[in-house]
Order: sequence, then structure tokens, then C-alpha cells
Amino acid sequence: MQAAVFYCDKMGFEPVAYKGLETGSREVVSHVIKQDKILFVFESALNPGNEEMGEHLMKHGDGVKDIAFQVEDLEFLIKKAKERGAVVVKEPWIEQDSYGKVKCAVVQTYGDTTHTLIEYLSPYKGLFLPGYNAPVVKDCLLPKLPPGLLNFIDHIVGNQPDDAMVPVSDWYQNCLLFHRFWSIDDKQIHTQYSALRSIVVTNYEETIKMPINEPAPGVKKSQIQEYCDYNGGPGVQHIALNTSDIIQAIVNLRARGMDFLAAPDAYYESLRENLKTSKIKVKEDLKRLQVYRVSFPLTILRSKAQGIEDRQLERELQVQTPQLTRYKSVILPLNRQLNPLFQCCH
Amino acid sequence: MQAAVFYCDKMGFEPVAYKGLETGSREVVSHVIKQDKILFVFESALNPGNEEMGEHLMKHGDGVKDIAFQVEDLEFLIKKAKERGAVVVKEPWIEQDSYGKVKCAVVQTYGDTTHTLIEYLSPYKGLFLPGYNAPVVKDCLLPKLPPGLLNFIDHIVGNQPDDAMVPVSDWYQNCLLFHRFWSIDDKQIHTQYSALRSIVVTNYEETIKMPINEPAPGVKKSQIQEYCDYNGGPGVQHIALNTSDIIQAIVNLRARGMDFLAAPDAYYESLRENLKTSKIKVKEDLKRLQVYRVSFPLTILRSKAQGIEDRQLERELQVQTPQLTRYKSVILPLNRQLNPLFQCCH
Repeated sequence: MQAAVFYCDKMGFEPVAYKGLETGSREVVSHVIKQDKILFVFESALNPGNEEMGEHLMKHGDGVKDIAFQVEDLEFLIKKAKERGAVVVKEPWIEQDSYGKVKCAVVQTYGDTTHTLIEYLSPYKGLFLPGYNAPVVKDCLLPKLPPGLLNFIDHIVGNQPDDAMVPVSDWYQNCLLFHRFWSIDDKQIHTQYSALRSIVVTNYEETIKMPINEPAPGVKKSQIQEYCDYNGGPGVQHIALNTSDIIQAIVNLRARGMDFLAAPDAYYESLRENLKTSKIKVKEDLKRLQVYRVSFPLTILRSKAQGIEDRQLERELQVQTPQLTRYKSVILPLNRQLNPLFQCCH
Repeated sequence: MQAAVFYCDKMGFEPVAYKGLETGSREVVSHVIKQDKILFVFESALNPGNEEMGEHLMKHGDGVKDIAFQVEDLEFLIKKAKERGAVVVKEPWIEQDSYGKVKCAVVQTYGDTTHTLIEYLSPYKGLFLPGYNAPVVKDCLLPKLPPGLLNFIDHIVGNQPDDAMVPVSDWYQNCLLFHRFWSIDDKQIHTQYSALRSIVVTNYEETIKMPINEPAPGVKKSQIQEYCDYNGGPGVQHIALNTSDIIQAIVNLRARGMDFLAAPDAYYESLRENLKTSKIKVKEDLKRLQVYRVSFPLTILRSKAQGIEDRQLERELQVQTPQLTRYKSVILPLNRQLNPLFQCCH
């Protein structure tokens, strides 16, 4: 509940649906919030000793437990996934109420993370999914706050321990019929101290982006390994949210009480120097970016220098927030980014 | 973090101190928030498998784990408590930094709840306690919201299973040198369906009030037993916060997005009838109370009818909020109340 309120107050989400004792859900209470195309579901166990949720919480703290995908042919996908070795946590089942009918199944991905696959068997006319009612709480503050300006989930990063990146990205290709979008190695993403490798997997339509990271040797422990240590194994490192106006989004989210990590002035000075000899053209006014402390992911600067394809460079700006679900566990930068510049603050 | 932000945004608290990786605390991250004399500390484990916090979370969900008391002579109290059979979870230890020095110890009370006793060995000049720094996050929204108008913790209710009320209240009297403030039995607190017994224990100065409740037989399961079932045993049911202006507090907290349970109109009609033949005089305008859905605890109405002493009747108004930490676990009414009127919504 409090986490859902946080995302509403600070990031511009709105409560859309609720499941709990009042709706006949006696094991789990669930708050659904939404902003444009982004849907987050926050769940807690209602009874003592709920093993599924309790053990996840004890091991990983608050974090992402499931990433749900809407699919067109659930039975086909589950059959394929099983043939190719996927662990099906929950076989297909039907959920329905007077507003419609869906078929769901749950498959295991990296660590204790799962994917729920959802097929709409009819256009669903309710608030979210069968069994959910309207939110129980009325919040008079939300309509008075400036809009969050967040539009969709740009990508969701899964951090893996050493040598697990390739098998995990293969799993997505084999079991969920994803393909490789791009990949980078530790020559491309590294700071003085920390390095990583990444393969981005995506669905057929390229609407889902899942960078799968693993550590690479560096002077200090890779931030990816550090994540795995704190998280107790692989898991979702961050969810990047896309906005079409990063500066206005920062202004609005700051007004809502969100805090952002600030790039130092030296960053912008060195950026100006680098841009002089680079093909990269920045459409935003660099002075404004500096005022609002918006930065480019280090990835992009490096990969461009090395001639790597970059499909959407003009929107590669980022900010990050220290207001996390758990240290090193979930961060919410605006816009796509791969290598946090301010690792120490996560 | 999100929970602390919730209490700041919705209830008017301010962040005052922080402990975490940046301050050298490698196991626990801790956010301290304050409003007038009320201090809440929200803690999470940083590492996977933290047994103390993980098991508490798995069994009880989010909730009150420790209630800290400032004491004048910690060694004397711990010696007495031990002699009288108290379990000392953590023997006295010293915490210090450049701002001062404190001595602490932890004793076990009901269920998995503990009391930290804190003795200031010198006036502490830091933000909260040794080891805490300033909050890491700047929230631009808080200064723009109307004040919460909450002043101090009025009381903290501990729910016990059947027949545990007397031993627990004896424990406070024997081990912490508390005394009985008042007590009520199930003839006094009951609805048509649910009943409870309660003993309020208090310290020498009567600045701390701890009602210890247990279920009593009724047509349906007592709300106290229901709490114990959902909580996995005894625990803190609610923290009541005192305000000197309940109507303005409701107006302000509603503007901050807090939601309150609404007493139905029928409640005020029957209240008007009852007050005609009662010695109780209500200083607030009943129409305004009705507009803002402020109610009297059922306790007070019943106990008055039965001639029980009531020391502070004129401030016995309450509202309750459904925005909880966990179902049936922690509720935050304004002002003192003993028997929630709207049990189904907790």
C-alpha cells in the first residue's frame, strides 16, 4: 500500500484497481497503479508465513517478483517453452468475472523472477483483470500535482552472475521466441573501476526490451556482481521509464517530491569537449540539461565512439533517483540507460 | 523508504535522519521521520537472508517491531527486569559519535515485539542517535503541504490471544515498573458480534499508555482474535496519535491525500439520541463532526453509561484510516480510541 502510494505521489501514477479481503482475496492484497501504458502491481501476503512471498521478501527485499507479458496464443507459447526446457511454475488457468475472461500461466526466468503470460480470451471490460475492484482509498492530493509525464516501460534490466548472461539470453530466444536486439561487451561498457557485458533481448515486434547483464573483470567489483550479492542472486536491477520530455518530467517529478542523482558540473564540461569531435548531435540545450542534471548514459558515449549501431540516440538521456525499493535492487531512471554513472548512490 | 515517504506525504511527518551504506551501516538501512514529539523509524535489511528482519516480515508483514522508551537508569531497569524474569534480547551497549553518547538495551515483550531502552549519557546533539546522518533525499513537495497537526503518541495497543492480557500487563508492572491505568472487561466493550477485554498499563509519570487487549466471547470471532490470526500471534494493533484539533487535522490530512473511514449518518443520529440522556457534553459542534465523519470510540459511550471513570472524555474523538501497513496490523487513528467501530475495514 505505502509503496503504491509512493509511486502515485512521487512519480505520477494513479490507483486503478484493488484486490483484497473485501473482494474475496483472502491470501493476497494487491494494489494496481497506472500511468499511460505503465502498469505496476504491488502485492503483500495477508496471512503469516506465506511462503512464496515471504521467502522472496526475506531473500531479496522489496523488488520485482514478476514481469507479466500479454500474449496472443498462450497454449502455443507454453508448449514451445516446455519443449525447450522452460520451468512452468503454474500451468495455464482461466480467470474470469462479469467483465471478461483471460488465460494465464507462469514461467520461471532468472533467479526467483517469473513471467506471467496473459492471453485475453475476450476484450476485458473491467478495471484491470478478473477479481479486481476499484481502489479502496480516495487520495485528494493526486489531482493537484503536476503530471508525471511517463509513458511506457522502456526496458527492464536483469542482472546475472558471472557467465550467466548467454544462457539467460538464450533462454529468452528459445523459450519465449525473443531475438537479440543488440549486445555489448566489457570493452564498451566500463568505468575506471567496474565493467559489464550486456545482451538485449526483445520480442518479435520489438516492443519489449530486456537487457541481460553480467559482470566483467575490472579494478573493483563490477556493479553487476555487487547487485547480485545484495540481491541474493540474479534479479531485476531497474525498470527504465520512457518520457517524451525529460526536462519537463524532471521539473514535474521534483515538484512531486522526487529526488534525482545530480551529475557534477565537470561532467557537462567534459561532455561539451567530447561532443565537439563527435557525430552526436544533442537536440536539447546543453545548458538546460546541466541545470536539471540530466546526463547521457556512459554506454552511449562509448558505443558511439566505437561505431556501434545506435537506433534511438536522440532520446538517450537519463536521470536516476536514489529513492529506491531496496538498495541496489530497483532503480527508476527516466529513459533508457544501461550503465549507471553514479553507482555509489544506488 | 517508501513507507517513510508515505507517512511524510500523507500524515505530515518530516525526514530527520538516515542510516545506511553511506553512513557505514552495512546490514540495515534506516529512515527516521518526525512530527512534533512523534518519532518513527523505518528499517529494512540490506543483505539477503537477514534472519531477524526477514523472519519478522515473513511472519507478520510490515508492522511494529520495536517500541523504544527513553529511560533514566538503564542498568537499574535491566537488573530489575532480569530479576523478574524478563528476556533481555540484547545486553546493555554503548552507541556514540561526536554528537554524544547513549546506552541501549533490548527486552522482549509480547510476541516478537521488543522494547529498546535508551539512556542518554550526555545531552545528544546530533539529529537522532549516534550513527545517523542527515536524510539522503530532498523532498520539494513537503513544504507545500498543510501541516499534519499531530503532536504525540497517545497510546500503542498490543493485541494478545485469549487469556494473555493479565500475564502481559503483569509483565509491564513487574519488569518495567509500570502500573495499571485503567481496565475494562467484555461487559463494557462489545458490539453485537465482537467483544474484548483491556488493561491499560502506564509508566510512573503516565506519559506512556499501553492498552493490552484480549478477545472475549461474542457471537462472531473477536476482532482481537482476528488480529492475532492475521498477525501470526500477538503484536501492535495500532498507534493512536494525538492532535489538539481533530477537525483541522482531518481537513489537512485529507488535503495531503489521507483517507478516513466514514461513520454513517445513522451513527450521528443515534449519537444525538444517546447524548440527550447522557452526562457527556461534546464541546465540538456535532454537525461539524458529522461533516468530517469524526466518531466517538464505542468504548467511551458504553463505559460512561456504566459509570466507569473516564479521565479525558472531552478529547475522546477519533477517526481511522484504511491506509494500513498490513491488514489488521497497524492502524493510525487520530486521538485515543480503544474499540474500532469499523472493524471490517481494518
